[in-house]
Amino acid sequence: MTIKVAVAGASGYAGGEILRLLLGHPAYASGELEIGALTAASTVGSTVAELMPHLPQLADRVIEDTTKEVLAGHDVVFLGLPHGFSAEIANQLGPDVTVIDCAADFRLTNAADWSKFYGSEHAGSWPYGIPEMPGHREQLRGSKRVAVPGCFPTGATLALLPAVQADLIEPDISVVSITGVSGAGKKASVPLLGSETMGSLKAYNTSGKHRHTPELTQNLKEVTDKDVTISFTPVLAPLPRGILTTATAPLIDGVTQEQARKVYEDFYADEPFVLVLPEGVQPQTQNVVGSNMCHVQIEVDTVARKVLVTSAIDNLTKGTGGAAVQCMNLALGFEETAGLPRTGVAP
Amino acid sequence: MTIKVAVAGASGYAGGEILRLLLGHPAYASGELEIGALTAASTVGSTVAELMPHLPQLADRVIEDTTKEVLAGHDVVFLGLPHGFSAEIANQLGPDVTVIDCAADFRLTNAADWSKFYGSEHAGSWPYGIPEMPGHREQLRGSKRVAVPGCFPTGATLALLPAVQADLIEPDISVVSITGVSGAGKKASVPLLGSETMGSLKAYNTSGKHRHTPELTQNLKEVTDKDVTISFTPVLAPLPRGILTTATAPLIDGVTQEQARKVYEDFYADEPFVLVLPEGVQPQTQNVVGSNMCHVQIEVDTVARKVLVTSAIDNLTKGTGGAAVQCMNLALGFEETAGLPRTGVAP
Amino acid sequence: MTIKVAVAGASGYAGGEILRLLLGHPAYASGELEIGALTAASTVGSTVAELMPHLPQLADRVIEDTTKEVLAGHDVVFLGLPHGFSAEIANQLGPDVTVIDCAADFRLTNAADWSKFYGSEHAGSWPYGIPEMPGHREQLRGSKRVAVPGCFPTGATLALLPAVQADLIEPDISVVSITGVSGAGKKASVPLLGSETMGSLKAYNTSGKHRHTPELTQNLKEVTDKDVTISFTPVLAPLPRGILTTATAPLIDGVTQEQARKVYEDFYADEPFVLVLPEGVQPQTQNVVGSNMCHVQIEVDTVARKVLVTSAIDNLTKGTGGAAVQCMNLALGFEETAGLPRTGVAP
Amino acid sequence: MTIKVAVAGASGYAGGEILRLLLGHPAYASGELEIGALTAASTVGSTVAELMPHLPQLADRVIEDTTKEVLAGHDVVFLGLPHGFSAEIANQLGPDVTVIDCAADFRLTNAADWSKFYGSEHAGSWPYGIPEMPGHREQLRGSKRVAVPGCFPTGATLALLPAVQADLIEPDISVVSITGVSGAGKKASVPLLGSETMGSLKAYNTSGKHRHTPELTQNLKEVTDKDVTISFTPVLAPLPRGILTTATAPLIDGVTQEQARKVYEDFYADEPFVLVLPEGVQPQTQNVVGSNMCHVQIEVDTVARKVLVTSAIDNLTKGTGGAAVQCMNLALGFEETAGLPRTGVAP
Repeated sequence: MTIKVAVAGASGYAGGEILRLLLGHPAYASGELEIGALTAASTVGSTVAELMPHLPQLADRVIEDTTKEVLAGHDVVFLGLPHGFSAEIANQLGPDVTVIDCAADFRLTNAADWSKFYGSEHAGSWPYGIPEMPGHREQLRGSKRVAVPGCFPTGATLALLPAVQADLIEPDISVVSITGVSGAGKKASVPLLGSETMGSLKAYNTSGKHRHTPELTQNLKEVTDKDVTISFTPVLAPLPRGILTTATAPLIDGVTQEQARKVYEDFYADEPFVLVLPEGVQPQTQNVVGSNMCHVQIEVDTVARKVLVTSAIDNLTKGTGGAAVQCMNLALGFEETAGLPRTGVAP
Repeated sequence: MTIKVAVAGASGYAGGEILRLLLGHPAYASGELEIGALTAASTVGSTVAELMPHLPQLADRVIEDTTKEVLAGHDVVFLGLPHGFSAEIANQLGPDVTVIDCAADFRLTNAADWSKFYGSEHAGSWPYGIPEMPGHREQLRGSKRVAVPGCFPTGATLALLPAVQADLIEPDISVVSITGVSGAGKKASVPLLGSETMGSLKAYNTSGKHRHTPELTQNLKEVTDKDVTISFTPVLAPLPRGILTTATAPLIDGVTQEQARKVYEDFYADEPFVLVLPEGVQPQTQNVVGSNMCHVQIEVDTVARKVLVTSAIDNLTKGTGGAAVQCMNLALGFEETAGLPRTGVAP
Repeated sequence: MTIKVAVAGASGYAGGEILRLLLGHPAYASGELEIGALTAASTVGSTVAELMPHLPQLADRVIEDTTKEVLAGHDVVFLGLPHGFSAEIANQLGPDVTVIDCAADFRLTNAADWSKFYGSEHAGSWPYGIPEMPGHREQLRGSKRVAVPGCFPTGATLALLPAVQADLIEPDISVVSITGVSGAGKKASVPLLGSETMGSLKAYNTSGKHRHTPELTQNLKEVTDKDVTISFTPVLAPLPRGILTTATAPLIDGVTQEQARKVYEDFYADEPFVLVLPEGVQPQTQNVVGSNMCHVQIEVDTVARKVLVTSAIDNLTKGTGGAAVQCMNLALGFEETAGLPRTGVAP
Repeated sequence: MTIKVAVAGASGYAGGEILRLLLGHPAYASGELEIGALTAASTVGSTVAELMPHLPQLADRVIEDTTKEVLAGHDVVFLGLPHGFSAEIANQLGPDVTVIDCAADFRLTNAADWSKFYGSEHAGSWPYGIPEMPGHREQLRGSKRVAVPGCFPTGATLALLPAVQADLIEPDISVVSITGVSGAGKKASVPLLGSETMGSLKAYNTSGKHRHTPELTQNLKEVTDKDVTISFTPVLAPLPRGILTTATAPLIDGVTQEQARKVYEDFYADEPFVLVLPEGVQPQTQNVVGSNMCHVQIEVDTVARKVLVTSAIDNLTKGTGGAAVQCMNLALGFEETAGLPRTGVAP
């Protein structure tokens, strides 16, 4: 019995990454999983060979329109669509279809947060796709609906969860997340031109304006009763893929480097996709490029009385398409790690 | 019966890439292939976690010295060593060991060429690892010795073979190959610093001084009786991985775009790792990053009376480590494509 | 008596570069030259502080619409507009105004070439702004109209002129010009996104399709009676500024390295903006960034019987805005080098 | 009467930048200032044309050894040397020579801080070269000795001074400074290779280990009586030049965006090299490349109860060589802005 998978928004970066990973999935190799409709908007009628020559196995496939009719008859539908449109399409898919949504529509549980940051009506919330968060793996197993997390919240949540849960820090946290340009998507725009982004660094959507702020706060609140305050500063840097997150928070008196390190090692001991690096080795984004890994480092700064946690992910893999496939694996009952590289394409 | 594989020069870029690919090889997953000794020189005693955090499966492995004793007891030995030292080590390995050499030592058949370009005694020549060259796949099957080709000759040979063999061009060829910086290896050097290479372009080893020139000439001579003349200009460009080769040669009178295209499509019809792109689509290096693919385009310029062939490879994959694993597959009787991605990590 | 200068297309890259250079011009410092209207299209009403914070001296200036009325009353008008529109505006400016056009409209002398490559009616031709070409400096002195050359033709013409004129080569030339992304302008477009251009290399408008091909041919024909044939391959590389040109052509029998070198040193002996590098030093684009220099190297490859000439320019300075200011200096009778850096911003 | 200037460490990045700026200095153009000895260590005997082709005016100059004898007879000596050696040379120069030191030796006033971070004996302290700090301009005027500040402290001090002085924030500050690779100097090293730095991001010398931490703390303590606590996280990013500093600190209750903005506008109202950007415009490093500017933005985040200040400088210009020339101008009585570009080489 073959599982038929559609990808809506297939010619965008999230869609392309999902396809790249599916083509390397053992269930695709064995024929158990089949890639069906590829849909998009402005690229309808073009072939994959023209749009995404990095996927030669699909070279002759033609992009179709994103409609209920084209998506019908699939067992799994990945949505790599703009928010709003994503919920609209999702609501037209039957309850038996496994829907894995890479947009923001179903991430936030608080309707007021949604309205404030997205300015439209809240579509609801679905099981949230960071399996490494306590309880989430269980919710995702067999789920017919998955909200894939945002790329910044993924890197920052994995960096901060253990520290917040174990009370190593006051959850009054300054997060600076430096991202490659593919996080902004494949839409023509002057500020994202190569000329504007190469050889340059720029903060943007600062001081709480970035829509990923409430998502990160929501995640951390799941593991603490304290108030959580996040100052979030995203920075655009000249690389295609990768997010380096630096998070600084007040150290709880008496916490030592050894304790902090042990908390992290224990928390992630059984996680296939989170690597706590040896002491003295800082996460470097090139080491996770193309992989589903998150590399983490924790340091106690007793002079400044702060904890510094750093993490590196590939925004398109663990930050989007890899998380989506990891969630599909849980939803369909495949091995969680199937088709997901742990090795990075370095250098 | 497990096949035990050693990698000498494991902490260099070629070694790291071979390891990345072996970790994704189905024979590694099934336990049929085992990764044994990892050796190097200046990094002896360090762990993989410290040197190559992009290979988390090997995190605790310690780098050993490159000696006959350490390499003994392995069925396959990959050599990612400086030329000269590579032949020295190779000559200490028994005839039953499969030796796959990424250095130049055994590539050239002509001892005079070797002396002229490398200034030392010729070590001999081994089956040459471009399986797509006529007759080479057969030589590589079951071979105990393989000379992995240079990265520039790989991109240029795959670009030019069909045109030279089918007499589309006069083999008086201007090749400009633009390469990412990892091709120069992982050795400390001022001209290869990020500050010297980012935001800059520079030709080097021009006018026949590059050691890959005789290797490319040798390859093309295998498919023509005509004299082959190569003007080879390598250019260093600010990207980590990738070679874009542009090759221009006089058009043989009467050859048409349709004929030229058909020659290429026929030549590569059954090749899993060479993709002749649709007309109008030029090879782009990001589409082959991390993959074992070579993307090719051919154009007849009737005004300038030239043929332009362009190709894109990842210098560390199809250009080195991927070719090495492809040759290992042939040498050991695995499926040729096993463990070798055809999808690129784009963007 | 103050000279009033307007820049049309001020918010594009050519316009921005002209303004950067004018702000460093001694005539601006002395008050002899004044920056008047800044005009554009989609950015009308925005301030320079919002659009081009790299020009703090003009922070409060507001962009106006590009009309005859706004441009009236200026002594010099720089045009950094799309071709076609450039000629349209130029034709509305009085004969006493010094018009310096960075578009292509008035570069080609042959109307048939224009029609073939641009598909519209030929607007005519103006004195062509490479002062280093024999006779051109004289034409540009005091001229009221100047056609600023294209960036690729500038780099390739300066590389090839001496060799063609002195008959060092057969003028059957393969030119591969590798360019930074700013050459494509500041227009939103998916193929020019940072994600598509960083970490990647791609040829484009190959095999004579690039509009700069007839311009380069025209330039070289000025110094030879032979037929000139150009195979031109532009390549897009991941850097903001810079063009590295490699030009290969058949060596005329008997020409030696010493002769070739002397031809170049003599040709450029008195040129302030062309530097023939010492033997063994290849041009590197970072050494000319932000400067009006062209660095050149010439090598005779006796094995391949070819001459290789390489050159490096900053496509926005010597390739556009610097050439425009150099021509303004000649047109207005300023010192030719005024306001034009000879030092590059390296590394 | 000509002023004769020597540059020790001339072939490094600081030395090269000082030379670039001196060549554009009006006193050099007028002959009032003359460039004398250029000294270094490993490059002795090479010409500037070979080492720094971006400085064509000095092409034929030969690098000499860094000795007292070679440096004798100059009125001004710039030191771009490793710390330790810098003090050693400085102490051999007479009291009438104007010595401008780009190393760290004379920056710290506290001997204990020096010992802790540099592990050697404290050489003393000199007038510290951020003229924008209260009282410093006056100290630098006519001074025979100047300690040029570190690049990170420059960007962070200019970002934070007004906020700390005006009590907008608690001086318990998290600073994340993202830097281009030239900040690490021109020394061969594997972690600084293009392959290791392009396409990658990495924090380093974290948690108070970076030697610039005590320097920044010292600067901020000059304008407040409160304790100053700095968590400093430097990040290496793939660009040649530029530092983007993000600084987050607790907002003092009741401070508004309007008040905060006014403090910054007033503080920098008369400063030629600091630009407070319009609201909503974030500093972008490409806008200051090659210039002596620092662009600053301040935002009050009332939700997170934090102030975010961001700043952009070119680490080699305002961060080193530009600061050195600005201090030379003050020391010699030139106009402070002479020879220092305010326009950035963008894009």
